[in-house]
Amino acid sequence: MSDTEHLTTGSPKPVFPDDGILKLYSMRFCPYAHRVHLVLDAKKIPYHSIYINLREKPEWFPQVSSSSKVPALELVAEPKNSVLIESLIICDYLDEKYPEVAPLYPKDPLKKAQEKILVVRFDQFINAFYKLVLHDNPASLGDTDLYAGLETYEEELKQRGTEFFGGTAPGMLDYMIWPWCERFSALKFSFGDHFDLSPERFGTLLKWRDLMLKDRAVKCFYLDGKIHAKYMASRRAGTADYNML
Amino acid sequence: MSDTEHLTTGSPKPVFPDDGILKLYSMRFCPYAHRVHLVLDAKKIPYHSIYINLREKPEWFPQVSSSSKVPALELVAEPKNSVLIESLIICDYLDEKYPEVAPLYPKDPLKKAQEKILVVRFDQFINAFYKLVLHDNPASLGDTDLYAGLETYEEELKQRGTEFFGGTAPGMLDYMIWPWCERFSALKFSFGDHFDLSPERFGTLLKWRDLMLKDRAVKCFYLDGKIHAKYMASRRAGTADYNML
Repeated sequence: MSDTEHLTTGSPKPVFPDDGILKLYSMRFCPYAHRVHLVLDAKKIPYHSIYINLREKPEWFPQVSSSSKVPALELVAEPKNSVLIESLIICDYLDEKYPEVAPLYPKDPLKKAQEKILVVRFDQFINAFYKLVLHDNPASLGDTDLYAGLETYEEELKQRGTEFFGGTAPGMLDYMIWPWCERFSALKFSFGDHFDLSPERFGTLLKWRDLMLKDRAVKCFYLDGKIHAKYMASRRAGTADYNML
Repeated sequence: MSDTEHLTTGSPKPVFPDDGILKLYSMRFCPYAHRVHLVLDAKKIPYHSIYINLREKPEWFPQVSSSSKVPALELVAEPKNSVLIESLIICDYLDEKYPEVAPLYPKDPLKKAQEKILVVRFDQFINAFYKLVLHDNPASLGDTDLYAGLETYEEELKQRGTEFFGGTAPGMLDYMIWPWCERFSALKFSFGDHFDLSPERFGTLLKWRDLMLKDRAVKCFYLDGKIHAKYMASRRAGTADYNML
């Protein structure tokens, strides 16, 4: 478990040994950064985690990440200390660069493209999720959009008839959507028991969730619903509590 | 040159011979669809173009494109007539599936990821472009954001010292940003001569533009600034004139 203190305005840039190990700039509760942790952990690639306070960023951070955002992956062994940004681009890079352990895409270009389309379509769920989580009066919103966004995945996994979208092990699609699925269980702590997936409507996804919870990479970075709910409440109040762990 | 009549509500689904040739659902003035035309033409892949009226779509179109958007590429030779959506996913698929002619990415995974980051960062320019083009009173907006979005590319190409971002021939980055660069020359017809790139500030990109205009794939789908300006004016007026050609 890494130190999860988040560096902030005034924090010096951390110094690491010249060990050639990747550095991941992250935020402990950021689901986009979570994607990269999952892929690094699935592929057993060692890395240093550096957590950034996104409200009061260290002065040196924009020089590291051209977008000033997390996740940013610094490839210290590459010329000019190359830094990659954008969660999907980083994860695709890692899968191409480290194909031996846990290859995450189908080899066939068409099947690979279809997985990517399902990753992009998940934005519908992500948007509905944030609309709910960050709304002043979430109870007024209802949950129609939220569940509609998930139905595609329930149907897809049922049709595939496999344990994971990736087959017998999680693939890129599994890991790319997992951060929000993990956070789904925060909703009942924030907004009441009716925010739970119905076994009749989402039976396949519920079985998938239980299997994902046993996956080694998922366990490496897992937080339970209560903790996610506590962080989301602090964010909604405008005082995101990055160092609560 | 394909027939550019756009199919609309009530239009029957066009019937093609069982020739195994790709079908591209497009709109003649859509820059995202333009990306796919460029890659197909660069790779000399034959395809049928089917143009869709996006304001009054044919009833059968949502069954073809799961997002109801263009571009959508129907792979008629694949099982279940697979249809791909999302311009970047389609173009990446084409580059993987047809690597022999005009390979568009660097082979090195890091360099490839860096090209993808530059494609995504171009959204800054795209957003500024649309804000201007679709604004009621464009003169009031100025052009700061527009030019700021281009500076990254001027600097990048200068540093590379190559004719194209792809080296001696256009690569994925060249083709992915080209549709908006082609449309840039519409701005002076719409909003006046001051919307032109300054040779002092954008000398490298201006040379690149002249070279791109000579590229075979670019020429295949090229429209001049006056025509783009006329289409944009019709769109701004709420009466997008798809069939003006």
